[in-house]
Amino acid sequence: MTDRITALDLARAELSEATKAYFAKCEEKLGLVPNVLLAYAFDEKKLRAFTDMYNELMLGESGLSKLEREMIAVAVSSINQCYYCLTAHGAAVRQLSGEPALGEMMVMNFRAAGLPERETAMLEFAVKLTEEPAKIVEGDRAALRQVGFSDRDVWDIASTAAFFNMSNRVAAAVDMRPNPEYHAMAR
Amino acid sequence: MTDRITALDLARAELSEATKAYFAKCEEKLGLVPNVLLAYAFDEKKLRAFTDMYNELMLGESGLSKLEREMIAVAVSSINQCYYCLTAHGAAVRQLSGEPALGEMMVMNFRAAGLPERETAMLEFAVKLTEEPAKIVEGDRAALRQVGFSDRDVWDIASTAAFFNMSNRVAAAVDMRPNPEYHAMAR
Amino acid sequence: MTDRITALDLARAELSEATKAYFAKCEEKLGLVPNVLLAYAFDEKKLRAFTDMYNELMLGESGLSKLEREMIAVAVSSINQCYYCLTAHGAAVRQLSGEPALGEMMVMNFRAAGLPERETAMLEFAVKLTEEPAKIVEGDRAALRQVGFSDRDVWDIASTAAFFNMSNRVAAAVDMRPNPEYHAMAR
Amino acid sequence: MTDRITALDLARAELSEATKAYFAKCEEKLGLVPNVLLAYAFDEKKLRAFTDMYNELMLGESGLSKLEREMIAVAVSSINQCYYCLTAHGAAVRQLSGEPALGEMMVMNFRAAGLPERETAMLEFAVKLTEEPAKIVEGDRAALRQVGFSDRDVWDIASTAAFFNMSNRVAAAVDMRPNPEYHAMAR
Amino acid sequence: MTDRITALDLARAELSEATKAYFAKCEEKLGLVPNVLLAYAFDEKKLRAFTDMYNELMLGESGLSKLEREMIAVAVSSINQCYYCLTAHGAAVRQLSGEPALGEMMVMNFRAAGLPERETAMLEFAVKLTEEPAKIVEGDRAALRQVGFSDRDVWDIASTAAFFNMSNRVAAAVDMRPNPEYHAMAR
Amino acid sequence: MTDRITALDLARAELSEATKAYFAKCEEKLGLVPNVLLAYAFDEKKLRAFTDMYNELMLGESGLSKLEREMIAVAVSSINQCYYCLTAHGAAVRQLSGEPALGEMMVMNFRAAGLPERETAMLEFAVKLTEEPAKIVEGDRAALRQVGFSDRDVWDIASTAAFFNMSNRVAAAVDMRPNPEYHAMAR
Repeated sequence: MTDRITALDLARAELSEATKAYFAKCEEKLGLVPNVLLAYAFDEKKLRAFTDMYNELMLGESGLSKLEREMIAVAVSSINQCYYCLTAHGAAVRQLSGEPALGEMMVMNFRAAGLPERETAMLEFAVKLTEEPAKIVEGDRAALRQVGFSDRDVWDIASTAAFFNMSNRVAAAVDMRPNPEYHAMAR
Repeated sequence: MTDRITALDLARAELSEATKAYFAKCEEKLGLVPNVLLAYAFDEKKLRAFTDMYNELMLGESGLSKLEREMIAVAVSSINQCYYCLTAHGAAVRQLSGEPALGEMMVMNFRAAGLPERETAMLEFAVKLTEEPAKIVEGDRAALRQVGFSDRDVWDIASTAAFFNMSNRVAAAVDMRPNPEYHAMAR
Repeated sequence: MTDRITALDLARAELSEATKAYFAKCEEKLGLVPNVLLAYAFDEKKLRAFTDMYNELMLGESGLSKLEREMIAVAVSSINQCYYCLTAHGAAVRQLSGEPALGEMMVMNFRAAGLPERETAMLEFAVKLTEEPAKIVEGDRAALRQVGFSDRDVWDIASTAAFFNMSNRVAAAVDMRPNPEYHAMAR
Repeated sequence: MTDRITALDLARAELSEATKAYFAKCEEKLGLVPNVLLAYAFDEKKLRAFTDMYNELMLGESGLSKLEREMIAVAVSSINQCYYCLTAHGAAVRQLSGEPALGEMMVMNFRAAGLPERETAMLEFAVKLTEEPAKIVEGDRAALRQVGFSDRDVWDIASTAAFFNMSNRVAAAVDMRPNPEYHAMAR
Repeated sequence: MTDRITALDLARAELSEATKAYFAKCEEKLGLVPNVLLAYAFDEKKLRAFTDMYNELMLGESGLSKLEREMIAVAVSSINQCYYCLTAHGAAVRQLSGEPALGEMMVMNFRAAGLPERETAMLEFAVKLTEEPAKIVEGDRAALRQVGFSDRDVWDIASTAAFFNMSNRVAAAVDMRPNPEYHAMAR
Repeated sequence: MTDRITALDLARAELSEATKAYFAKCEEKLGLVPNVLLAYAFDEKKLRAFTDMYNELMLGESGLSKLEREMIAVAVSSINQCYYCLTAHGAAVRQLSGEPALGEMMVMNFRAAGLPERETAMLEFAVKLTEEPAKIVEGDRAALRQVGFSDRDVWDIASTAAFFNMSNRVAAAVDMRPNPEYHAMAR
C-alpha cells in the first residue's frame, strides 16, 4: 500500500470503524482490498455511495448471473480500454467461469468467444450502448426480449453497462492502479 | 403520470413510507418528482443507491459550484445526445445561472459560450473523458491544476463527468422521458 | 446590433436600398433581422446568393412541409453541434409545430421523438448524409421511396440536409451568434 | 447525354432561353455542360440559385486565387469521398496549376503535397471544418491570420469549404455522375 | 532518381547482382523500377521479403483475377488515403481494365462504380476489414460465400486487403513518393 | 490440432520436409507450433513469404530490442482488438520483459504503463500510424528522432506497426485461434 493508487494527492482521513470492518471483510473474502475502495476512501460518503451501488448491481438479485454481469463489465471496459477494470474484472470472469481463456476474450474482443445467442445479444447491446448511446432504438430492446430477456433483465444489462462507463472514466481520469495480485489469479 | 416514463414494463411495488416522503419533498422543493426517480422506483434499493450517489455528487460539498457541476452534466449529455439529461439539467443551468442562453449553449456546443479559462478547462477535460477516456494522460490533469483546480476538484470534475456517462446510458437504454415541465422553466 | 455577430472584422459597406427594404421586411415579419443576414451583409452579392438559395429551399414549393424542412435543418445541425442554427431553427420548429418539446427533441436527439415512419425515414436519410455521405447507396434512396417520397422529394430532403451542412460550417468557422430573441420564442 | 446523370427520375421542363444560352456558353468555354448543371435543370430556380452562389464563390473577387479555391474544393471532397466533385474539381486543379500530380495529391491526400505554409494552413482549416466543425475555436482562425490571411480571406476559405460540404452531399444523395471528359483532361 | 523517394535518410549499400537483375527486369517490363522497391533496397533482406510476399499475393495463382486484386488494393488505399499506393495501383486498375474511369472510381469511392454483386461483396468485405477489423463476424464471411467465393478466395481477399493495410502504413510513415510516370499511364 | 484453427475450410496438402523440419524446430524452441503457421500451411509459398517477413522483422538485426518490437505488436493489436495477436504477442511481452503486468498493460492500454520517453514516443507513433495513417506528417518523424531514434529505427518502428496492421486483419478475417498454451505462459 506504499505505492500510489491514483495520480491524485488526496488527504485521507482516519477510517471509521465501519470502513475498517468492511475492508477487513474484503481482505478475508478476496485476499485483498480492491484499490478502487482505497481510492474512494478519502471521503467515506463517496466510498459508501460507490459500494452501495456496486454491490446492489453486481451482487444483488438479478435475472443475470454474476458471471454475465462480469462479462458485461469487461466487454464495456475493453471498448474504453480501462486498465483498472479490465484487470480486476477480467480476473473475476476467469474465476467465476473457471475458463481463463474466456476472461482473455472478454478483455480482447468478445466476438472471438463465439458465445450463445443470449450472451451475444447481451454484449452487443452493452457495446452499442457504450459506443453509440444516442442510437439505441426500440429494435435494440426488442433484440434482447427476443432471446428471452425480461424487461427487468434489460434494465440490469443497461445499468451494468452504464455503471462501467462511469467507473472506467473515474479510473482513467485519476490513473487508478489495480492491485497487482489480480494478474496471476485464476490463470 | 399516466404517460409512460420508460420503454420498459416494470412492475412497481407499493412505495415505502420513506420513499413517499422523499417524493413529497421533491414535489415541494422542485414542483415535480423527476421522472428518473419514478423510473428507478420499481426497486427501492436501486432508487436509494442512485439518489445517494447523485445527491452526494451534485449537492454535496465540493470546490465546484453547483452551477459548474450542472454545466459538466449538460456538456457531457450533449456529446451523448441524451434527451432526458439535456432537458432536466439544461433547465438546471438556466435556473442556477439566471442566463437562459447559457443553458442553451451547454446543450448545443459549450465552445460557443466563450467561458473563462477555469470553466473551459473543466469542460474540455469532461469532454475528453467522455469521448476518449483511454487517451487521458498526466498532461490533462496538469491542465486542470494550472487553472487553479486542486486534486480534490479534479476528482469531482471526473466523478461528475463519469456519472453522467452512466446516467445518459441508462436513460438512452430505456428511452427515459423527462417531465414536460422542464421545457418551459427559466426561459 | 452593437454586440459582435461574428468573430471576423469585416468592413461593411453602406447597404443598398434593396437590402434595407429586405431587412425591414424581416423586421416586420419576424420581429428581427436574423444575424446570419447581417453577417453576410458585408458583401451584397454573397448576401443575395445566400438568401436566394435559402428562400427557394426553405420557403419554395416542395412535397415537404415547411415544418419537415425545419426538422431536417435542426437534426443536421444537432450532429454538427451548430449553436447558431440550432437556436434559430429550433425556434422555427417550436413555432411551426406548436410543440415546444418537438423543437427540443430535434436539437437533442431526434430519435427521442418517436416520429411516424415518414419523418423517421426522412431524418435517418438526412443524418446518414451528414455523417457518412460516402456510404449512401441505392438502398437509402429506396427506403425513402418506400415510405411514399417521390424522387423530387428525395432531392428536397437531400438539398435541405446538404444546405445545413454548409451553413453549419460557415457559422462554426466565424463563430456566428444567433439573435438572443430566439431563445424565448414559442416556449 | 442519353446516359443517366443522377439516380433520380426528375421530369425536366423545357429549358428557358436564358438557360439554353448559359449552357451554350459553358459548351463554348469548357467544351461541355457540367452534369451538375443538367442535374439542377429540372427546376430553373434551383439551377439559378446554385450557379449564382457557385460563380460568386469560385469565380468572384477574393484574396484567394482560383487555384486555391479549387484546392479547397478537392481537399474537402476527398474527405467526403465525392466522386462527382473529385472528378470535376480534380481536373480544375490540374488545369489551373499545370501540374497533374498536384491534382492527384489533392484527391488522394493533400498532406503528400508538401505545400507552403499558407496553403497548408488553408487546407488544414478546411479539413477541420469538414471533419469536426463543432471543434473550431478562435485558435483555428488565429492560425490563418498568422500566415497572412485577412478576415475576409477567412470568410472565403470557410465559405468555399462549406459549399463543397453541401455539394458533396447533394452529389452523394443522388449519385451524380461526372462528365466522362474530365478524366482525361490536363493529364 | 535524384529526387528523394522517402523522408528517411537510409544509407544504401551497393546492390547485389541479383537485385540489379531484378530491377533491370522491372525496367524492361514496366518501363520503370517502382519506387517502393528502391525504398526497400537499403536492406536486401527486407526487399526480398517484401517482393516475395507481394509477387505471391498479386501475381500468383488465385481465384481472384489480377484486376480484382488491384481493385482491392485501391479501395483499401482510398480509406487510408495513401498517396503512393493510390497512384501506383490506380494506374494498374486503369491498365488492366482498360477503363480509366474505373481506376478513378476505386481511388475516389468504389460505391460510385455500380459493380456487379461479386465485386461489390468483395470490396465491402475489404473495406470493413480495413475500417473495423474487430467487428468481422461469421456473417461477413458468409456474404462472400453467398456470391460464389470459395474459402480459398476468402483467404485471398483477406490477405490482399490486409497487405495494403500494411503497405499503406509503411508508405505513410516514410512519405514514400510514387514514380511520376504513373500519373499519365492509361488515361 | 483437432480443433479448428480458422473459420475457413482449406484443403491442406502434405507438408514438405522443409516445413516439417521448421515446425519441429518451433516445437522444440517454443514448445508449440504457433497456429498462425498452421493456418498458412495450406500453401507453402504463402507460409514461406509470411515467415520470411516475420522473422526478418521480429528477430532480425535492428536498433529496436526484441521486447520493443513485441510491445509495438501488442499496442497495435490492442487498437485492432485482435484476439490472436494479443494472446500470442502479449505472452511474448510477458516473457521477454519478465514483467507479467507489462504484457497486460500493452494489451489493455499502453498509456497505463508510464513508459520512458523513448518507448512512449515509439508507441505513440505506432498508434497514430494505426489509427490515422493519412495524418502522419514530418513532425511525427521528428518526434522519434528527438528521443534518439535513427532513420533506420524509424523504418523499423513503421514496418513493425504496419506488419501487425496486416496480420491483425488476416487473423480477424479468418477468426484465427491462438494456441491455448499462450494464456498461462509467463504469468
